Amino acid sequence: MNSGLEIGESYNYPLIINKLFDTAIRNLSRAEIVHCDNSRYGYPQLAKRVNQLANTLSSLGVTDSDTVAVIDYDSPRFLSCFFAIPMMGAVLQTINWRLSPEQIKYMINHTKASTIIVHADFFSLVEALISDLDHVKTIIPICENGEIETPLNVTKNMEVLLSEASDQFYFKDFDENKKATTFYTSGTTGNPKGVYFSHRQLVMHTMSISLSLSAFKSIITFDSSDTYMPLTAMFHVHAWGFPYIATFLGAKQVYPGKYDPETILKLIEKEGVTVSHCVPTILQMILEHPYSKKVDLSNWKIIMGGAQLSEGLAKEAQSRGITLHSSYGMSETGPVMVLAQPKQHMTDWDDKAQMSIILKTGRPVAMARVEVLDPEGNFLPHDGKSVGEVVMQAPWMTHAYYEDTERTKELWKNGWLHSGDIGYIDEEGYLQITDRIKDIIKTGGEWISSLEIEQCLSQHESVLESAAVGVHHDKWGERPVAAIGLNPDKEQINEQELKTFMLKFVEDGKLSKYALPDRYEFMEIPKTSVGKIDKKRLRIMLNK
Amino acid sequence: MNSGLEIGESYNYPLIINKLFDTAIRNLSRAEIVHCDNSRYGYPQLAKRVNQLANTLSSLGVTDSDTVAVIDYDSPRFLSCFFAIPMMGAVLQTINWRLSPEQIKYMINHTKASTIIVHADFFSLVEALISDLDHVKTIIPICENGEIETPLNVTKNMEVLLSEASDQFYFKDFDENKKATTFYTSGTTGNPKGVYFSHRQLVMHTMSISLSLSAFKSIITFDSSDTYMPLTAMFHVHAWGFPYIATFLGAKQVYPGKYDPETILKLIEKEGVTVSHCVPTILQMILEHPYSKKVDLSNWKIIMGGAQLSEGLAKEAQSRGITLHSSYGMSETGPVMVLAQPKQHMTDWDDKAQMSIILKTGRPVAMARVEVLDPEGNFLPHDGKSVGEVVMQAPWMTHAYYEDTERTKELWKNGWLHSGDIGYIDEEGYLQITDRIKDIIKTGGEWISSLEIEQCLSQHESVLESAAVGVHHDKWGERPVAAIGLNPDKEQINEQELKTFMLKFVEDGKLSKYALPDRYEFMEIPKTSVGKIDKKRLRIMLNK
Repeated sequence: MNSGLEIGESYNYPLIINKLFDTAIRNLSRAEIVHCDNSRYGYPQLAKRVNQLANTLSSLGVTDSDTVAVIDYDSPRFLSCFFAIPMMGAVLQTINWRLSPEQIKYMINHTKASTIIVHADFFSLVEALISDLDHVKTIIPICENGEIETPLNVTKNMEVLLSEASDQFYFKDFDENKKATTFYTSGTTGNPKGVYFSHRQLVMHTMSISLSLSAFKSIITFDSSDTYMPLTAMFHVHAWGFPYIATFLGAKQVYPGKYDPETILKLIEKEGVTVSHCVPTILQMILEHPYSKKVDLSNWKIIMGGAQLSEGLAKEAQSRGITLHSSYGMSETGPVMVLAQPKQHMTDWDDKAQMSIILKTGRPVAMARVEVLDPEGNFLPHDGKSVGEVVMQAPWMTHAYYEDTERTKELWKNGWLHSGDIGYIDEEGYLQITDRIKDIIKTGGEWISSLEIEQCLSQHESVLESAAVGVHHDKWGERPVAAIGLNPDKEQINEQELKTFMLKFVEDGKLSKYALPDRYEFMEIPKTSVGKIDKKRLRIMLNK
Repeated sequence: MNSGLEIGESYNYPLIINKLFDTAIRNLSRAEIVHCDNSRYGYPQLAKRVNQLANTLSSLGVTDSDTVAVIDYDSPRFLSCFFAIPMMGAVLQTINWRLSPEQIKYMINHTKASTIIVHADFFSLVEALISDLDHVKTIIPICENGEIETPLNVTKNMEVLLSEASDQFYFKDFDENKKATTFYTSGTTGNPKGVYFSHRQLVMHTMSISLSLSAFKSIITFDSSDTYMPLTAMFHVHAWGFPYIATFLGAKQVYPGKYDPETILKLIEKEGVTVSHCVPTILQMILEHPYSKKVDLSNWKIIMGGAQLSEGLAKEAQSRGITLHSSYGMSETGPVMVLAQPKQHMTDWDDKAQMSIILKTGRPVAMARVEVLDPEGNFLPHDGKSVGEVVMQAPWMTHAYYEDTERTKELWKNGWLHSGDIGYIDEEGYLQITDRIKDIIKTGGEWISSLEIEQCLSQHESVLESAAVGVHHDKWGERPVAAIGLNPDKEQINEQELKTFMLKFVEDGKLSKYALPDRYEFMEIPKTSVGKIDKKRLRIMLNK
């Protein structure tokens, strides 16, 4: 027990991921970690596998100055990587394999990753890139069927390497501010931006979010007796940090592999999943699947995020017995910053009032602070109407974009992380995001939410899709103009009819008069490569 | 919003008490903070009072290099001090007014406290010491009836000062390692030892213990819906840190003032107290009070500590509907290190088996590690029988005794805090303390727990009290000898009868043969000034 410390010298306990893992393992949880292929093991086995992976990587030359990229589906393998790689002092890089090969090449080169752990389904991706991956020395293949078929120069199958490695590894302490994980977030322009998190940040996110979902009592709790399954990918902000929480608590964990609604539903049914996190499109997909009618979903609690949760989807989920509420965060914020948890005194509110709470963006988690700023940078009151840019502070935010000083300057100003989102905070402390700042329409000193205009337009049955943007106006600076894609199966309406339709939202007090678009353009609305409305291009088109 | 940070420079979020308080206040809890005199207010008012106290102290010249000593009963006033004093960067010194005036003088001089906040009941104590208190410049009186009657040179009554102060105060950020609190722990020899905690340590204790009592599910939970009342004094290791937890959660809090069983019982009844922490003697006192039979205690959860919880008391408490389990820690450890929480798979065990769990010392809380060492400093296995010194690590332990290098060397060795307690850890990870290390009897390479011998002796109805110590033995090093105080109301037995009585514990396998005392001395057992058995003096007497 030689610690290198003098007699009388105290232990400076670092907040490192190893300490979360140590808590889990020493608690001797009897819960299982389950894969969609029905393989399963307990926490003692997880500990062994983490040790085996650390030994494997060490023997392949990975040191605490290396970055190890992982390209995989949601699996217990990936979970081992979440712990082993940062615990040995290396950096875990999670790769969003949905991005373009060009972007993936950029991000692997940008971090100088020396090692790639890659699932066989993504061999062709790596094969196409390998000649341009400047720093990669080792490729570890994951072949679930045991057969390695690739021209790539790879090691033995990951499972074979693990089985050959010792299941004992001594994880050393190090500075809690050491980088633990990194991944890239793609904007509409330029290269993807590298965000990264230190051990301390991941420990604080784990503890704070876990506290917010247990000690701060609300309709969704997540404790050691729950069964967790991710439904946002592990490459996406560490599956919102939940695998760290679930492991810390020693909870049962279920990993769905490649997302498939029927597999997911059968796992919920068979394994008794109680807690997930999800974006609206995935939940929609699951609820629309015929098998969903056969599964009892009444013990399932879902933290929703990624996009505004619609009342329709929330009601459908509730009618199936699901408990859910909204949440919000960004890649840069670790991610969870707010949860739309109803407060204790709201529990006896009627359904409609409670619905209005769970659809809000949410209120800050423990240790987090969220404010909205006016254009001059002053804090706006929490009055449910003062709209400004959402800024945040928490102990777990990325300190910078990796080697990108310019874009870091857009992120951090005056000690606050600037979200680029627009919203307001109400008297109860709930944030409501209303728009992206670059999509807001500034007219005569007033801000108009493009989202609000679009929400009104979407209620006309002839409107298939719509997008409101600001166009230049000599007097007002900008004025709203709406692009309209009509539904070919419905009545084809004209501009005057839409104007009349929109006027009633003004009469009902749901829209400001100055938010009424100046004109409506019936057109094919431009889209980005991933199918989102491209407001940047639209703005150029409509400003002409 | 001038932060002094450059554009692009991130916020280094410090783990300071202000951030716990900020979480509480921004959550807009509607819970009350109640005093035994029936005065009560909400969290917004607590925030105002904390600001008022900071303004009051500032205007009296207290800066972030000052120490402010508080001598008070458990009260919402004291709670304001828990936050305002460290949040302004000063050090909160809590005074155990049960110690001798000589010791209190020592500790106030040792910290160089500039300011004392003192309840009228302790004026006479301060009056007797004031001429020897070298650094005290300001005395703030707490007079609940408004009348100040003392020859001391004091300020206006604390309540008057608060009412005159602004309820707005800007708490600056500072280094999370800044000292936040201090208090003294008295040993059997020498001056009291000053322990102290940084902001970071208190934040980590608050978060970890809170997590352990909510996210790690067991029979006692403590969440924002609970009503908390301390039953170990606020001067004693910040009432085990629970006022910080309760405030962080925005829970309802009830402060009992000067401990009186009837007042306590009436508060439990009237305010609906659900969570407390307590030592066995206080719980005994409460349950023996006639009024306790009239109060429904079935919603009351108690974390027991300070001394071994006896099965008799635990059963009595359970028969009254109370949920309770043991815990353990030291002044030096912040204090909570282990909780005797049954695990999930134990919940369907029978009463007897569950009782055996809640009487154990406990298993480590989140982020804490506890081991037992052999005399050479090697980790002993967790086998339920290997006995050694209990050593600990956690992110919230005092780094040293204040200005006491020698005794710090006894506390910290090889990066582990040495408890001075002896015990073992079982296969499920539960620690069982068996003795103080200085009371252990070392015979022929074996360790005998004096406690074990005494527990056997205590089961003879003629034995009122007993104490086993080691006396020198040429062959074995030490051999156990037992001092016996007979019960004057029972049959007066002789040594041979006791020997026969003790032999049956050996036959039943409950005591090792070599643990049988060599002789029994019928005598008046020496006591310390606070009435505890003085084993040090006894050892000298019996070694003669």
